Amino acid sequence: MSDRKIYFDNTATTPVLAKVLDAMLPFLKQAYGNPQSMHDWGDGPREGVEQARAKVAGLIGANNNEIIFTSNGTESNNMAVKGLAMAQQAKGKHIVVSAIEHFSVLHSTKTLQKLGFEVTEIPIDSYGQVSLDDIKKVLKDDTILVSIMLANNEIGTIQPIKEIAAIVKEAGIVFHTDAVAAAGNIPIDVTELGVNAMSIAANQFYGPKGAAALYLKKGTRIIPLLDGGIQESGKRAGTENVPAIVGMGVAADVAKAGMETRAKQLTSIRDRLIKGLTTKIDNIILTGHPSSRLPGHASFCVEFIEGESLLMLLSSQGIAASSGSACTSKALKASHVLTAMGLPPEIAAGSIVFSIGTSASEEDIEYVIGALPSIVDRLRQMSPLYAKYLKDLGGK
Amino acid sequence: MSDRKIYFDNTATTPVLAKVLDAMLPFLKQAYGNPQSMHDWGDGPREGVEQARAKVAGLIGANNNEIIFTSNGTESNNMAVKGLAMAQQAKGKHIVVSAIEHFSVLHSTKTLQKLGFEVTEIPIDSYGQVSLDDIKKVLKDDTILVSIMLANNEIGTIQPIKEIAAIVKEAGIVFHTDAVAAAGNIPIDVTELGVNAMSIAANQFYGPKGAAALYLKKGTRIIPLLDGGIQESGKRAGTENVPAIVGMGVAADVAKAGMETRAKQLTSIRDRLIKGLTTKIDNIILTGHPSSRLPGHASFCVEFIEGESLLMLLSSQGIAASSGSACTSKALKASHVLTAMGLPPEIAAGSIVFSIGTSASEEDIEYVIGALPSIVDRLRQMSPLYAKYLKDLGGK
Repeated sequence: MSDRKIYFDNTATTPVLAKVLDAMLPFLKQAYGNPQSMHDWGDGPREGVEQARAKVAGLIGANNNEIIFTSNGTESNNMAVKGLAMAQQAKGKHIVVSAIEHFSVLHSTKTLQKLGFEVTEIPIDSYGQVSLDDIKKVLKDDTILVSIMLANNEIGTIQPIKEIAAIVKEAGIVFHTDAVAAAGNIPIDVTELGVNAMSIAANQFYGPKGAAALYLKKGTRIIPLLDGGIQESGKRAGTENVPAIVGMGVAADVAKAGMETRAKQLTSIRDRLIKGLTTKIDNIILTGHPSSRLPGHASFCVEFIEGESLLMLLSSQGIAASSGSACTSKALKASHVLTAMGLPPEIAAGSIVFSIGTSASEEDIEYVIGALPSIVDRLRQMSPLYAKYLKDLGGK
Repeated sequence: MSDRKIYFDNTATTPVLAKVLDAMLPFLKQAYGNPQSMHDWGDGPREGVEQARAKVAGLIGANNNEIIFTSNGTESNNMAVKGLAMAQQAKGKHIVVSAIEHFSVLHSTKTLQKLGFEVTEIPIDSYGQVSLDDIKKVLKDDTILVSIMLANNEIGTIQPIKEIAAIVKEAGIVFHTDAVAAAGNIPIDVTELGVNAMSIAANQFYGPKGAAALYLKKGTRIIPLLDGGIQESGKRAGTENVPAIVGMGVAADVAKAGMETRAKQLTSIRDRLIKGLTTKIDNIILTGHPSSRLPGHASFCVEFIEGESLLMLLSSQGIAASSGSACTSKALKASHVLTAMGLPPEIAAGSIVFSIGTSASEEDIEYVIGALPSIVDRLRQMSPLYAKYLKDLGGK
């Protein structure tokens, strides 16, 4: 056991900044009222929510009234995919997504399929990017929605969203992007990107769990996922999670300030990690795009071993990593993202993802570079696949 | 302005107990991991969620694996109504609700109507209760779901859920009850009640906003509202709001302990409030059932004036009350609950609801009894309706 604790699993969830928690506490104590209440107790919470709305809008270049607060990234994605499709079904029933969307998008389209919608999944290349030609090819007269994620949580690849959005807009089709893994980590401007809708989540940029948002461009029609009261301009009913929303606002402010500097620094130590590990370990593959990727994101497939075993041994040495999406981590089958990139299941099984946080030091990076090779060695000693590989190698 | 602060709007949302916040804090600080993560950082949050699940199950006599955490009562109701209906549509498309359900139920049925479902709203009597005969009458061969709330948030009336559930069960139909206003305030046992599904929310029993639950009886089929990852046994995707869920667990424990004593005490001071106000103010009507009502709930219609004006003046004297549901408080039209009870719109307009919390003192009650009559007088001085009433009275 190590005394060192290195949390490199920030795509699963980030820690909450002290400043964020400090801002939340008044709303968990004295300012407990319901923002919809017509008495003094409602005023503070209502102002808290609206100030947070302005801050979150500011993070992505949106107008305040284009931000709808939800409970998490999954809800934002469900609301977008189902709600935008349902709102336009008179116009057509064809939806386009990429093969590597988060399950909250992919499984939402499966639900829509049961309601008579047609879904096309477009492929990705070996770096995890969609091709603009493929997008153009699949759009039809009855295509009503395209949803392509901005950055992938498992492989870090950033898509050319601006270019995709231009094609989709040209065809008069609504475009949604899942920016949950990206927002707060790279600069985003919804107007510049030209999207109609975008999902973001506080717990991906040092805000709390329980608050997320859907950006919905003014004039874009949507059917609510949560029916009921008048909250969020009637687009998302239910008592607002005031403390978490306030926390999201502060986290958005912090994320926005100094984002370029932070991204540059994270990219630098990320590249150090990639170089260190690929130099010291044989038969390790960097997954995702080498440069068009999230600043703190380094993902690999280590051949001949299981990602889960790697995780356990890393954890015992004080290092948190992931073998893919936290949302599917207990479903031990090959990641749909890695297989879509063309990796065979036996290689995809060795997936390991380091998502480096803003508090990471170069020492942390060196520690991981020092620790992983011997863990890989230990596991390969027990691997029949590796024994076969060595035997085949010797036979050549 | 008064220095006294009396919060009698606990159906809008309750304050968070200090004990609840204390339990949440570690999960907002060091134990920030994702419960689904396969490393040490996931262990504490996962255990926190599971311990909370046991506590919440304990509050309503459920098994742990029958509790699905959601983000608020509205989500629980949407999930129940839409998910139970969608799961059974091969069997039929007829749904029964009462006319006074919360909008999260009623508007969910409106969405289902657009998908081809048929909805019957059954009436209520002048106390706000449904009749068992009316239930029996409307059930058909293709009825697949009945949803009747346990207690109404606007009028406090408690329905005979056990008797209703028995009729619905006898007919082989799935039964859901919205217990958001009731859970934590009155003893509830899902087995004794005989329901298939029940919505509850933490912020109605001194837990935080952002955590609620749907009880789903083992074997009851449901289509998830939030598609995506494997959380909540695949029934509600999305990263769990761990701090809020942990808080809900502690609040459930506190609510369960000493509930009978607390309910008895609240009933006593509620009845003191009802007696005081109806004695001191003429032309005031107690709405809802005189005895089968929530312990801390006292609701009235004050004739000849507007509930909103009452609220403002009460607030200026340090008293928080409500004119109905917080979810509709800014939509200034007559409450669907009051009109369903047969109250004409001009009387329903004078709605005022006091939902007394567990920390209320007899002094608070006396203060409100002292304050309201002169506020009513002031408003009636300005009321043309009251002037007409007095004139008509004098003419007799």
